[in-house]
Amino acid sequence: MARDDTLKLGTFVYTFGFHPAAWLHPGSDVKGANDISHLAKVAKISEAAKLDFMFFADSPAAAVGHPEALARQPTKMNRFEPITAITALSMVTEKLGFVATASTSYYEPYNIARLYASADHISGGRMCWNVVTSDHDETGYNYNREGLDPHADRYARGEEFLDVVFGLWDSWEDDALLLDRENGLYHDKDKLHQLDHVGDHFQVRGPLNIARTPQGRPVIAQAGGSERGRELAARTAEIAFSLASNIEKNKAFYADVKSRMAKYGRAPSDLKIMPGIVINVGETREEAEVRAQEMVDHMHPEVGLLMLQEFLETDLHGADLDAPFPMDRMPEKAKGSEAMFAEVKEFVEQGLPLRELITHYARRHTGNGLTGSYLEVADFMQEWFEEEAADGFILMCPTLPASLEDFTRLVVPELQRRGLFRTEYEGNTLREHLGLSWPETRHAKARRAAE
Amino acid sequence: MARDDTLKLGTFVYTFGFHPAAWLHPGSDVKGANDISHLAKVAKISEAAKLDFMFFADSPAAAVGHPEALARQPTKMNRFEPITAITALSMVTEKLGFVATASTSYYEPYNIARLYASADHISGGRMCWNVVTSDHDETGYNYNREGLDPHADRYARGEEFLDVVFGLWDSWEDDALLLDRENGLYHDKDKLHQLDHVGDHFQVRGPLNIARTPQGRPVIAQAGGSERGRELAARTAEIAFSLASNIEKNKAFYADVKSRMAKYGRAPSDLKIMPGIVINVGETREEAEVRAQEMVDHMHPEVGLLMLQEFLETDLHGADLDAPFPMDRMPEKAKGSEAMFAEVKEFVEQGLPLRELITHYARRHTGNGLTGSYLEVADFMQEWFEEEAADGFILMCPTLPASLEDFTRLVVPELQRRGLFRTEYEGNTLREHLGLSWPETRHAKARRAAE
Repeated sequence: MARDDTLKLGTFVYTFGFHPAAWLHPGSDVKGANDISHLAKVAKISEAAKLDFMFFADSPAAAVGHPEALARQPTKMNRFEPITAITALSMVTEKLGFVATASTSYYEPYNIARLYASADHISGGRMCWNVVTSDHDETGYNYNREGLDPHADRYARGEEFLDVVFGLWDSWEDDALLLDRENGLYHDKDKLHQLDHVGDHFQVRGPLNIARTPQGRPVIAQAGGSERGRELAARTAEIAFSLASNIEKNKAFYADVKSRMAKYGRAPSDLKIMPGIVINVGETREEAEVRAQEMVDHMHPEVGLLMLQEFLETDLHGADLDAPFPMDRMPEKAKGSEAMFAEVKEFVEQGLPLRELITHYARRHTGNGLTGSYLEVADFMQEWFEEEAADGFILMCPTLPASLEDFTRLVVPELQRRGLFRTEYEGNTLREHLGLSWPETRHAKARRAAE
Repeated sequence: MARDDTLKLGTFVYTFGFHPAAWLHPGSDVKGANDISHLAKVAKISEAAKLDFMFFADSPAAAVGHPEALARQPTKMNRFEPITAITALSMVTEKLGFVATASTSYYEPYNIARLYASADHISGGRMCWNVVTSDHDETGYNYNREGLDPHADRYARGEEFLDVVFGLWDSWEDDALLLDRENGLYHDKDKLHQLDHVGDHFQVRGPLNIARTPQGRPVIAQAGGSERGRELAARTAEIAFSLASNIEKNKAFYADVKSRMAKYGRAPSDLKIMPGIVINVGETREEAEVRAQEMVDHMHPEVGLLMLQEFLETDLHGADLDAPFPMDRMPEKAKGSEAMFAEVKEFVEQGLPLRELITHYARRHTGNGLTGSYLEVADFMQEWFEEEAADGFILMCPTLPASLEDFTRLVVPELQRRGLFRTEYEGNTLREHLGLSWPETRHAKARRAAE
């Protein structure tokens, strides 16, 4: 199926890469979690390849509970705070967009509205807020709670939070600034609005103390695959991050979320559905396989054990790596991927040593998505794009910057040859790269409706 | 009195300058509230002159209630959020320190600890948090409140907040990171600590998910002149911002705060007392007077009226500018400076037109501190420094960058000639510029005590 738009691509940022052994890769910068020049390098590679954005996942907590394993797995322990990181990186790039995650459960809407608006001005319109409600127990303990709030409570707060932030971002109309020195008039007082929001969770007067941003307002990203998450995405999101499982499931998700948008007066093109995908790529499939296996070989068994127990949501602490999987710790059903769970279960039932299961799981986990030649990767992306399973992809590079360099060197030119990806940025803002419409303020909308 | 240290100097940032008419100055950048290149220029001027830091005041609210006047006075209406601004500016400077204000009343400690630690890493150790509890009614309305919380409540929360942030900044010991690829060990698990704070306002487990910063922890600044504020400064602050009123009062403040430090195990040199001072400077006093008057001439009477009513804390809305001051709106006593109040009162009693009073007040307000030749300004600073009324000054430039350029061109070389100010930075971090000691973690301290 031909489409008249092109693929969107983002670089997913876990400091050293998505693979837990990424920091052991000789091409990575071992100081990269605290030295911004590492991420600046990733940003420059992304921008040179004309990618749309860098995407910062986040969790406002360090992992706890498995100190031995965690001492070997830095990604969840030591990382930049995303808003400061993207602001810094915007100063060493010109066009690249940036997505930073922040949680509605642990922030105040006035602060979020300001931080992202300020970063959007600083970057000249290249910022996006990835809205999450947080889904790890660990975070709650850092914010006056005993674990997570219930899902429904977090969503109710999150939805109202987002409405308040949108309201604050509408404080200043597009043309509110006059900057008229001759008459001493800085802004048009009639185009600056209080919000006066009073809701169940928030009471916020406004107005926001920073003018409307170069993108009107920052772009909004979301993940959430639940019923409530899909509805919120259809109403508010401009980038939807999901996981690439299989094309049929992703097509169904794509069709479902896009079909919900019309009732909010939104066009399907105003939301880009971009699955995250782990890609091991080479000139040939063999080369890609070697790269994928190298990462697994780097990995310490303790780290593999932690990965496996996180997937199974069980406790494997102290398990003997040379004995079979302890059956009493095997859950009855999958909480994550069912296909992956079935594979693990088969392995467990064969009674193979735990050490082998770990290697197998790590290999498959790393390969979730794709291990193949650049032609195979391009074929995969083309199919998902043309079949409307995706508007683009978020690249979960096993290691940074090496895997990203492989991708931009091998796959990007192939996508460009096929006319599936840009050879130059369409404009200066992330909104322009993504082909999203200009967000009209509620005041402009009301005036238009009244005319 | 000879001192063996030198003056510290910071640039106070209100977008266009401290004077309400600063944005009308032909040398200012009218787009500067949203275009970071304006502040980048200020940063580069500050760094070229070897100043210690740029200081961002803040209030998380736009002013409301006087739309006509506020449309002529952008500073409180449209500004960068300080943490994003200083992060961005650190990317275009090498040595300059940065102070950003954030309120303990409207943030969560885990977020503040992360944001500043992250910015400290990004900048290579040049960040400072100016801790405020917020003292404007307007802010509360943006954070689920009907105005401000009572002073005592704000301070109780603020004190605990600060303790939690210090605790989080101590999560990772100085040498916790091993970065040992050969053995696959990223950090030493015994040097990473949970906080497990449980207090009246906060319950925070930790650890912080970012390693100890290049300065150990960011520097702490505070203002507060109340009894409780002084005690908190003596216990925790490394920069104390005050207003320069007169040398005797400032000497008393200096002696009082420094004398409180010993009981917290701190040396007097670990806190720099730096009054904010408005300076109009020229080659000659006459030139300085002309500059000061120019600013007043630029000012619209509505803006002057707003300034005056903010000082008097009365409502002058709709008052006739050509009639005498409406006596029924005159408060009985000063809430701010008593000397200034006495002057205003004398004026009012003479029955002069309100318009003249406004001009007089604006002139004096602008001149609070100093209008003089560069020699007079240097004399003033030398006296305050040598008499221990100050360890340095925060320069509240009437207009930016023009007044800052006047200061760095005229006064800095004179201070250097007198041996009162550095000609090169002492090191790379703000802590080094200020001559502050390295902050030992509580864990290192406990270990040392046990040995």
